[in-house]
Amino acid sequence: MSQYVLNTWYPLTWSRNVGRDLSAHRVVERDVVLFRSQDGKVVAMEDACPHRLLPLSMGRLKGDSIECGYHGVVFDCSGKCTHIPGQEMIPANATVQTFPTHENMGLVWIWMGEPALADVSKVFDLPQYHDPAWRAVEGDAQVYRTNYLSLCDNLCDPAHVSFVHQTTLGNSAGNNVPIQHEQQERKIVTWRYINDAPPIPLFAKYGNFSGNVDRWQQYHYYAPSITIVDAGCAPTGTGAEKGNRENCMQLYGCHFMTPVDEETTIDHWLYVRNFVANPDLDATLSADFRVAFDEDRVVLEGIATNEKRFTHLKTIKIAIDAGPRRMRRMVDGLIEKESVR
Amino acid sequence: MSQYVLNTWYPLTWSRNVGRDLSAHRVVERDVVLFRSQDGKVVAMEDACPHRLLPLSMGRLKGDSIECGYHGVVFDCSGKCTHIPGQEMIPANATVQTFPTHENMGLVWIWMGEPALADVSKVFDLPQYHDPAWRAVEGDAQVYRTNYLSLCDNLCDPAHVSFVHQTTLGNSAGNNVPIQHEQQERKIVTWRYINDAPPIPLFAKYGNFSGNVDRWQQYHYYAPSITIVDAGCAPTGTGAEKGNRENCMQLYGCHFMTPVDEETTIDHWLYVRNFVANPDLDATLSADFRVAFDEDRVVLEGIATNEKRFTHLKTIKIAIDAGPRRMRRMVDGLIEKESVR
Amino acid sequence: MSQYVLNTWYPLTWSRNVGRDLSAHRVVERDVVLFRSQDGKVVAMEDACPHRLLPLSMGRLKGDSIECGYHGVVFDCSGKCTHIPGQEMIPANATVQTFPTHENMGLVWIWMGEPALADVSKVFDLPQYHDPAWRAVEGDAQVYRTNYLSLCDNLCDPAHVSFVHQTTLGNSAGNNVPIQHEQQERKIVTWRYINDAPPIPLFAKYGNFSGNVDRWQQYHYYAPSITIVDAGCAPTGTGAEKGNRENCMQLYGCHFMTPVDEETTIDHWLYVRNFVANPDLDATLSADFRVAFDEDRVVLEGIATNEKRFTHLKTIKIAIDAGPRRMRRMVDGLIEKESVR
Repeated sequence: MSQYVLNTWYPLTWSRNVGRDLSAHRVVERDVVLFRSQDGKVVAMEDACPHRLLPLSMGRLKGDSIECGYHGVVFDCSGKCTHIPGQEMIPANATVQTFPTHENMGLVWIWMGEPALADVSKVFDLPQYHDPAWRAVEGDAQVYRTNYLSLCDNLCDPAHVSFVHQTTLGNSAGNNVPIQHEQQERKIVTWRYINDAPPIPLFAKYGNFSGNVDRWQQYHYYAPSITIVDAGCAPTGTGAEKGNRENCMQLYGCHFMTPVDEETTIDHWLYVRNFVANPDLDATLSADFRVAFDEDRVVLEGIATNEKRFTHLKTIKIAIDAGPRRMRRMVDGLIEKESVR
Repeated sequence: MSQYVLNTWYPLTWSRNVGRDLSAHRVVERDVVLFRSQDGKVVAMEDACPHRLLPLSMGRLKGDSIECGYHGVVFDCSGKCTHIPGQEMIPANATVQTFPTHENMGLVWIWMGEPALADVSKVFDLPQYHDPAWRAVEGDAQVYRTNYLSLCDNLCDPAHVSFVHQTTLGNSAGNNVPIQHEQQERKIVTWRYINDAPPIPLFAKYGNFSGNVDRWQQYHYYAPSITIVDAGCAPTGTGAEKGNRENCMQLYGCHFMTPVDEETTIDHWLYVRNFVANPDLDATLSADFRVAFDEDRVVLEGIATNEKRFTHLKTIKIAIDAGPRRMRRMVDGLIEKESVR
Repeated sequence: MSQYVLNTWYPLTWSRNVGRDLSAHRVVERDVVLFRSQDGKVVAMEDACPHRLLPLSMGRLKGDSIECGYHGVVFDCSGKCTHIPGQEMIPANATVQTFPTHENMGLVWIWMGEPALADVSKVFDLPQYHDPAWRAVEGDAQVYRTNYLSLCDNLCDPAHVSFVHQTTLGNSAGNNVPIQHEQQERKIVTWRYINDAPPIPLFAKYGNFSGNVDRWQQYHYYAPSITIVDAGCAPTGTGAEKGNRENCMQLYGCHFMTPVDEETTIDHWLYVRNFVANPDLDATLSADFRVAFDEDRVVLEGIATNEKRFTHLKTIKIAIDAGPRRMRRMVDGLIEKESVR
């Protein structure tokens, strides 16, 4: 039984990273070589020549085929071997596995499961990303030395913000506000509203608030490895909690996580904001996010170390765990369902 | 069965390192967070929040409590959870283990065994450390990439000095002088007198000797991880071996070893000398010790590497092994005794 | 059963590296200390004192004996213990294993198997190395982070040159020329002739060719870890393939591989050339080889990584594998033969 959900679209790398050369990537403990074909499609193949296992990414791109860097064996973009130097006969098993891909929201998405189930209409999309009334800004591919589920815990958990991000994304007004949660099919939403409170440092810096605001954090987790954080604030008493978003300042923090292996996760993050006037904000806001996400990284890597050391310590459960626990049960359920197919 | 003696006071860190902030330490493969309480006591707690295992040392000190850096769960200095943000109920098992501590000779000592047995009157003491006729100088916390018992072998073994420390602590006059040893309760003494011989380089440098001296090395090992090296020299023929210490130059090298894990030991060393006139000697003498102890480090780390590689080589026993062998039997006996309690 | 052939002469290090000091080496997962005795012979002993396992290479050379750096135990160059400080009695088992050595072609060769079988007349030799009509130039001891058999695959395989060394040792004229092979006792020869083709970059650079040449690559593999690459070119149509070497430009690339452990190989390479006029060529030609051999290193280390990751991938066999496959069967046969002795 795999430790990973396989029948899903995983974010793999930024679209802009894939061109007319070969690049090596890794997801769910499998190595993949990518290139862009002559007609612009992203081709993904297992990154090993079946002859001596040299990574194909160390070979040469010839048209839409890869020539292995060791003995010149050639595979076309369907994974079929088309040429072996020094011989006419090509063995029937001289093939390389390929993987379905799709591009959306500036990312290449890959399907590591049953190819027949790969439905590009299921690739994740946030409509605002494409809406000219909003502004999308690409962040980084941040590496976490931790299991992706530990980062998913964090991204089903608005409560940590008050303690991990005191100078960036949170402040003490939220410390004791309970977390709500709701489970949907393959999705978990966790949230809280903090009304009539000072804006968080990041919004205080970019907004023009004279006093308190009504603010919210709403984490939309899509199993197994995507979270969209809807965060914003509105003038106090204007009914944000009831749904009125007029005059609000709002931002979707998008976390597209690549589970590389048991101990490594890459978070491809970007954000989409509704305060679009000043493009100069792009860089400074990204810099602020970098500070905040690095705070998460330090915490999660500290936990990863202790999880190896304190294997016999019985842990406790608290109220804010409801979301993360549902998340883990959901992922376990998806993996189990795949194993009995 | 533990690989370590637990019912004992282990040296953990210099007292001066512990203040009103959180610091992380490790002993007998357990992680401990330390801080000094508002009334000046050293508090030691297991370095993991029982919620998600974040090291508590990555949290914040609030009064005499630690607030976890992930979700703000608070533990007081008795290890009891006193606050969980966002909820009223505190689970009964929301506790963190604490450890008895005591301070003496500039060090924090910790008790990792049964708390009921922790008797502070048993913390190691060298009376001369507190005596104004002597001068105590703190050295370093030197890290050895080796098991602490390998360093204890070395510190029950005056014979190695002639070969490992030829330019610092030994010279060839002692090469063939046999080693005496004596076993007491939880203690092993190994020694030799080298009479009518040139002083060792270190004493020759700081003493004012015109010719030969009567000199001694006496290693007092206290199980499981302390050695006091009594080294000195006196004018030839004045009866040092019979106990007369008049006009002698004498020094207690103190080694307070922290067994971090199977492959790491920290030696907190300091020395206490009876030639107190010149405080300028402090730094130069420490520098000389650093050279000598680094000679030990290189040897012991070379052995640690070979112990993994030459697992099938049958080793030989020689006369000078009597002390180290008794030391190892003593430690084994203490561990076994604890396991049957 | 050992993973290595033992009854063979392995290249260990350059002769010029062994003098009147102690040096540490490793071959077939065994550690060896070397020194040159007073009468100029290379002495090889197991690199561990049988007392506490300190590497003897960390001790001191005294005449033709080694004094251990920890307690001064002395072993003569036959491995016999001759002195233990502080005692008269020397235990009967106080010995260190020694290994037969021999020097040839600028290298120290060592015999790790049954000493009685060590026949120095079997140490590898290339007569041209000693012939004044040829010029021998020592290269490097290049470290490969790969098993030596993977490097042997490469050195039983002229076909890789066209793809791995396109700017140095190969060009596309050879891409599809099939490989011949022949098995002899403890030897495999693989080769091809590429007639009426442009010279390879390396020969084009140093030769004075106006047009095409007849060229050859002939790899002489001697089990378990030596390959001599005979490479050269002659004026087109002068019968090189039939054996006429007049007016040819020829070079023996010698690869003397030390299997350090399962994941590390040192290739001691040198070359012997028949174009001797210009000694200035020595350095530039070595520099060119360094570029080429680094191309091999990158490929073989890429394979080593993937061999751990793609353990379940079924690999394919192609025509050029005939030589490498015979090589591996030959080595397996030698190991098996030794195990049943």
